[in-house]
Amino acid sequence: MYGWKGQILRVDLTSGAISKEALKIEDMHNFIGARGLGTKLFFDEVNPQVDPLSAENKLIFMTGPLTGTLATSCGRYNVVTKGPLNGTIAASNSGGCFGPELKFAGYDGIIFEGKSAQPVYLWISNQEAELRSAADLWGKTVVETTDLLREATDDDAKVACIGPAGERMVKFANILNEYNRAAGRSGVGAVMGSKNLKAVVVRGTGGIKVADNAGFLNAINDARGKLKAHPVTGAGLAAYGTNVLVNILNEHGTLPVKNYSEGAVFANAEKISGEYQAEHNLVRNKGCFGCSMGCGRVTKNHGKYQGIGEGPEYEATWGFGSDMGVDDFEAISKANFLCNELGLDSISMATTLACATEMTEKGIIPRDKSDLSWGNADAMIDKVRKTASREGFGDELAEGSYRLAELYGHPEYSMSVKKQEIPAYDPRGQQGTGLNYATSNRGGCHVRGYMTAPEILGIPVKVDPDATEGMPELLKIFQDLTAVVDSVGMCLFTTFGIGLPEIAEQYRTATGVNISDADLLQSGDRIWNLERLFNLQAGFSKADDTLPDRLLNEPMKGGPHQGKVVKLDQMLPIYYSIRGWDEEGVPTASKLEELSL
Amino acid sequence: MYGWKGQILRVDLTSGAISKEALKIEDMHNFIGARGLGTKLFFDEVNPQVDPLSAENKLIFMTGPLTGTLATSCGRYNVVTKGPLNGTIAASNSGGCFGPELKFAGYDGIIFEGKSAQPVYLWISNQEAELRSAADLWGKTVVETTDLLREATDDDAKVACIGPAGERMVKFANILNEYNRAAGRSGVGAVMGSKNLKAVVVRGTGGIKVADNAGFLNAINDARGKLKAHPVTGAGLAAYGTNVLVNILNEHGTLPVKNYSEGAVFANAEKISGEYQAEHNLVRNKGCFGCSMGCGRVTKNHGKYQGIGEGPEYEATWGFGSDMGVDDFEAISKANFLCNELGLDSISMATTLACATEMTEKGIIPRDKSDLSWGNADAMIDKVRKTASREGFGDELAEGSYRLAELYGHPEYSMSVKKQEIPAYDPRGQQGTGLNYATSNRGGCHVRGYMTAPEILGIPVKVDPDATEGMPELLKIFQDLTAVVDSVGMCLFTTFGIGLPEIAEQYRTATGVNISDADLLQSGDRIWNLERLFNLQAGFSKADDTLPDRLLNEPMKGGPHQGKVVKLDQMLPIYYSIRGWDEEGVPTASKLEELSL
Repeated sequence: MYGWKGQILRVDLTSGAISKEALKIEDMHNFIGARGLGTKLFFDEVNPQVDPLSAENKLIFMTGPLTGTLATSCGRYNVVTKGPLNGTIAASNSGGCFGPELKFAGYDGIIFEGKSAQPVYLWISNQEAELRSAADLWGKTVVETTDLLREATDDDAKVACIGPAGERMVKFANILNEYNRAAGRSGVGAVMGSKNLKAVVVRGTGGIKVADNAGFLNAINDARGKLKAHPVTGAGLAAYGTNVLVNILNEHGTLPVKNYSEGAVFANAEKISGEYQAEHNLVRNKGCFGCSMGCGRVTKNHGKYQGIGEGPEYEATWGFGSDMGVDDFEAISKANFLCNELGLDSISMATTLACATEMTEKGIIPRDKSDLSWGNADAMIDKVRKTASREGFGDELAEGSYRLAELYGHPEYSMSVKKQEIPAYDPRGQQGTGLNYATSNRGGCHVRGYMTAPEILGIPVKVDPDATEGMPELLKIFQDLTAVVDSVGMCLFTTFGIGLPEIAEQYRTATGVNISDADLLQSGDRIWNLERLFNLQAGFSKADDTLPDRLLNEPMKGGPHQGKVVKLDQMLPIYYSIRGWDEEGVPTASKLEELSL
Repeated sequence: MYGWKGQILRVDLTSGAISKEALKIEDMHNFIGARGLGTKLFFDEVNPQVDPLSAENKLIFMTGPLTGTLATSCGRYNVVTKGPLNGTIAASNSGGCFGPELKFAGYDGIIFEGKSAQPVYLWISNQEAELRSAADLWGKTVVETTDLLREATDDDAKVACIGPAGERMVKFANILNEYNRAAGRSGVGAVMGSKNLKAVVVRGTGGIKVADNAGFLNAINDARGKLKAHPVTGAGLAAYGTNVLVNILNEHGTLPVKNYSEGAVFANAEKISGEYQAEHNLVRNKGCFGCSMGCGRVTKNHGKYQGIGEGPEYEATWGFGSDMGVDDFEAISKANFLCNELGLDSISMATTLACATEMTEKGIIPRDKSDLSWGNADAMIDKVRKTASREGFGDELAEGSYRLAELYGHPEYSMSVKKQEIPAYDPRGQQGTGLNYATSNRGGCHVRGYMTAPEILGIPVKVDPDATEGMPELLKIFQDLTAVVDSVGMCLFTTFGIGLPEIAEQYRTATGVNISDADLLQSGDRIWNLERLFNLQAGFSKADDTLPDRLLNEPMKGGPHQGKVVKLDQMLPIYYSIRGWDEEGVPTASKLEELSL
């Protein structure tokens, strides 16, 4: 099969042994690549009941067959493991150029297993791969680590590493490549830290062959034309990045405020918007490998929070902004810079702080422990630092909002699903998003089926976000298609402008695999069900497919969706049914047979 | 190919010659059947510029491969011709048992050509077919004609005939089979009248073979289960018929009032609703051949308009009700009974009366000619009679609203598209329906792409009816899928509960044609484009893809969509583009090549 290198590295961190293995053609067919194939390999090798931070857990870096090709925005790789934040199957994906560079070096992926006795990093230079000591790097920030490793290896090397947060196994530590691109969620950085693996450094100079050069170029040309023609992928993302959503969500009335405790309209939204950012703080925009959209923001703070870095993305802007009652864009940006430097998932960090702030304001967390209050940016920024270092109250924050709230006897203040913090879209005004949060295979997550597209942006069609009719059916398609996109190695943002036909045609012409659009989408269904099976075997059940009580029973306090709650009980049984699952949310035998699982 | 009989009748009404012909396999493959295949045969044989009421026009009765089988609600046939109301390609379809009976007699369809010198009817008894004199039937109502023909032939014969309106070539005369089932629109009854063909009478006792008995039964079982489980197809249609829509549309604010001149909310909607009908006038419900939904209403009037018959369907209830300012259900029902007895399309009849009423109220039509006024039920009923007989002012009404309004110098009061009257959904509160009206290949029509399903009923998903995002894309799918449904011989109402996969599986197992879901849907696209080509060659252009000025420029006066107009200019260019048409709405060479047209 073309598109692939057909080879992966296996790195035993306990023994230090490194070997090369071939991928199985059948798995490549059935699970596409990246997220799907990584999950398949993980499922075959690891007991779902493993302790995520033990040596028995594994950590898989996996690219897709289109990663590193000139297909639309295919710079992505996935990190698959059992995540320590909540114990679900984790597949965190990231852009930039790390994934392509790994392909150029000759590998589709890397399986890390065991645990190193000392801090190490993996250095890959084309067909050479070795583990080296990272003793001098331990404790360094992501920026420092990346700089030092490029100096030590090759200026053009791509570095994926953890920061101090990952070393200290903060439950929502992430992995960053090329300074600012993050495999952000589920705490994959903590797994890396638990294995004493500080970084993976790659330099590759090879190429990638595709099956049908002319057909592939035609497919790319068609898809790029559509991305260029669409207002979101052709203009909006380049102009304002993902922060274009701030004003849109605020106007729609689903921009959560103060830990979801108020009507989802923020008085000063304009001051934290993408438009504000573009006028005051934008240095330039930036694209990942082979991307025509360029949503990345290089941002400079000028005042007391001065500094330069990337982001914040919409979710971080919301999290450190309206969800914390903060309307100072540079303070938000500073908190985000720190997350990138220290290796923290900004969504879980911010939402954990919002949870802590609400409990502090309510007197549940004593004031001598927490100085957090709504709108107090300095206290917020201070806690980001302390979380990464697990210093004082930061050690409690480092466990995430669910464990924190439970510790104080009020788990209901954790805005999380399956212990993972939910992001920046109040589902009481977006019913489909509520169902997506409840059913996402990695817990609270927006990008497993981005229902904001139809509910607010009108892509591919503008659905009524207060209605439940058809939401389960639409969500299933979104979830399955997202599994395809993540697995070929493509950026999800392409799907604002192109759909299954364009993605499938790029896949077919690149790989030479003659698969119909419908069968490719069914592979997404297969991946979704494999992830479900893992979680069921890990101990999750129907009872976990739910939402925080606040979203189910506390009517929205203001805005266009005032009085609404998420009607999950109207949607979940239908969702199970169309997924081919029984009433307990378990895939039926016939469904598994249909998917050859 | 199974499902088919493979044989059609050709009846030359000029010479009286009747012959049998085989269908071409290639056409059966590419155009599915019924609407699609009928259009293909018509297009191959008739000049698009033909005068619809001349002997050179042809009239094709065509069934689909599933017609008469036990597939879900497959009792339908299509009448294809060039319609005299507006000169577009007409494909009017009807249910009941006439289509199945024709298949049982051994024919997939009948092509009528030429013109008989004297009134005749065609009598088919299995393989025997003969033209007989209809001299004694001329002038008879549909009920009288049907009764007399069953007496003259066979008690179990199925009769499709015209009433006095068709004989007099009222521009919107229809064809009725089994008393009350109508091939309603485009004036197909006038074409039948122009040929001096009063009726087609069929008795058939044969069967229909399917390719894969077990597979077909499985497919039916699956689809029927879904129809039963869905609230609309499993309960709503049986309980209240299509009039269940009256209260729903009124609440939604798109039930047009007084020729679309007021906000689309009718004060007394409850009194003309399906719920009212069920309580006061329903005798029993009734289903067509092989139908599990049973939406038909046998209705009895008790007061001054007493009588018994079928209907009214939602569109007639609206047309003779809120659109005429009438809130007396039995008066509406009486007007509808008369349409059925006299052979008139109730949508065009009612909308033409509403147009005439507005012009009378405004003093444009003199009072000595018209006594119509809003809410005057008796004047309305009187005009239905006079239209069928072309008596007095009825002769002007018989030309339809567009010619009537133009006659008085005010075509803007005709609520029509391409001269065909639009039905019961104000598109200023249903943007997708507006685009459907503007682009329907037979002019103003709701069932060429029933966007009320997603816009109001939430099927398959609840879209925002005031938004335009994604509407062109969604409409294309609806239009193409509808072409498939109409062409296999299935009732469109099934699509509330089942979709392409269930329809395709029934088609495949019945016919043995191994076609993918996607390719079957593409056949729908092919049919749509063939109809478009006919219309373009008949002289229609982009300028005809529009709406009455009132809907584009006169903001809605009240209700939930107050202030809205149809944003057609935002949708039409996108629609052309995704259809693969150029900026003038002409299919591109590459699109035609893709469809093998």
